[in-house]
Amino acid sequence: MTAHPRQVTAVRALKVRPDRRVDLPEQVATEEPMQILVSGPGQAPEPLAVTMRTPGHDFELAAGFVLTEGAAGRSGIAGVDYCEAQAAPGPGRYNHVTVRLSAPWEPPARARWSAASSSCGVCGKATIDDVETGCGLLPAGRPFPAALVTSLPERLRKAQKGFERTGGLHAAGLFAPDGEMLCAREDVGRHNAVDKVAGWTVLSGVAPAGSALAVSGRVSFEIVQKAAMAGVAVLAAVSAPSSLAVAAAERLGVAVAAFVRGDGYNVYSHPERLDFA
Amino acid sequence: MTAHPRQVTAVRALKVRPDRRVDLPEQVATEEPMQILVSGPGQAPEPLAVTMRTPGHDFELAAGFVLTEGAAGRSGIAGVDYCEAQAAPGPGRYNHVTVRLSAPWEPPARARWSAASSSCGVCGKATIDDVETGCGLLPAGRPFPAALVTSLPERLRKAQKGFERTGGLHAAGLFAPDGEMLCAREDVGRHNAVDKVAGWTVLSGVAPAGSALAVSGRVSFEIVQKAAMAGVAVLAAVSAPSSLAVAAAERLGVAVAAFVRGDGYNVYSHPERLDFA
Repeated sequence: MTAHPRQVTAVRALKVRPDRRVDLPEQVATEEPMQILVSGPGQAPEPLAVTMRTPGHDFELAAGFVLTEGAAGRSGIAGVDYCEAQAAPGPGRYNHVTVRLSAPWEPPARARWSAASSSCGVCGKATIDDVETGCGLLPAGRPFPAALVTSLPERLRKAQKGFERTGGLHAAGLFAPDGEMLCAREDVGRHNAVDKVAGWTVLSGVAPAGSALAVSGRVSFEIVQKAAMAGVAVLAAVSAPSSLAVAAAERLGVAVAAFVRGDGYNVYSHPERLDFA
Repeated sequence: MTAHPRQVTAVRALKVRPDRRVDLPEQVATEEPMQILVSGPGQAPEPLAVTMRTPGHDFELAAGFVLTEGAAGRSGIAGVDYCEAQAAPGPGRYNHVTVRLSAPWEPPARARWSAASSSCGVCGKATIDDVETGCGLLPAGRPFPAALVTSLPERLRKAQKGFERTGGLHAAGLFAPDGEMLCAREDVGRHNAVDKVAGWTVLSGVAPAGSALAVSGRVSFEIVQKAAMAGVAVLAAVSAPSSLAVAAAERLGVAVAAFVRGDGYNVYSHPERLDFA
């Protein structure tokens, strides 16, 4: 398949290896919100859903979503356009897509997906703004020991009773600066595993400040949002971060250590949150 | 961590290896919808969101979601209960959880998450029913060559230009019964990659009947739903399926081949959709 020019985003990362730390250019998958709208003949486009996606093949994505979520059948899709009326100029210019239906559109009574309530600001920046309003910048605090980071995914994995049996569960774990595993939770959804850990801090009354959150999979915007909102300033992930995750982490004050494998990892934001001493 | 009794679901799978096929008991991660409600003092619980989750630590999940999505701050959460009023008896009994807030609840003007529009039927069965209403059972058709299945993930991976550069992109690819790769798409979201392929069939006018859809990650309910709604009857995945994915595939007529690695895989539903001749 041909790569869309915006599919990949250039970032910088601090490569941390046992014997050195080097700041290098890296590439991450682009993550941007896209609003899908629908309209029947003569109808104004109505918001159907917002999905966090990688730019490229946006018309296919919109048509496919309408089909697979049951908003219209295959033959009921008349065409797809960028929604110029909805879009503000700037970074969100191509993040609104309208699917034109051949029959009048009526929202189904029971929808699993959400209509986005805002008709503007569907772009990465606005999305981060929303979270910043909710939690503000995380305060500076004692940095987390960098030497502990490499051990976190393996220790989290060992705590995963359900993964061993099914191979189908993500995990999130909260680790204190002395290395203690405070809480580990599993779920089919990465975001749910993080929410379970965040909820544990609420219900147990344990403040997560100073701790690191390890996650078994990739780091999307949503994972950074949830960490920031829970007051966790250090994320350690086995796999890759997205562009919006890195941008959000930069803005909200979260250190993202990703590709934590073997004896090394890459830090994509706020390396000062880690103590390399 | 201790395992919740419902964290894992027993299923049967057909283990396909080069020299044999054996029907064996298997375990998959449980996936069930959970509705999160919120209430202020003296207020009736109001639906906030529905998440597909693995049962266990449900109160933590609800409290964590409320915190990390900004519905209430840490100190604003007074307690969590199962919502008996909402729940119908039966399988969805524990799938409604209310977070009690210490202050009156007012929905924010701009919410990223969706309030579920239905107050009943939040259980796996009802969720599958919804999809079945939308697409019906997939018709029987010519089975897909079983011998091709093992090659699909590797061929999909080779088509992934963005993954090579970022390690952060999922993929979905549609393969014809003669082995031709018709379409391959990447995205940070697994579901988006599937929607892009589904949308390609809409916009290109290529009927997907008889083809197989390969996906790079796990098979959740949502992936089976999208395959069924797009009219694809064979799914091939590198990783594990969830319980609700298997149940939905069984009901909707989709063959799920998972753990497609090396020269073998497991078939969790409708093996008659594969041609082992």
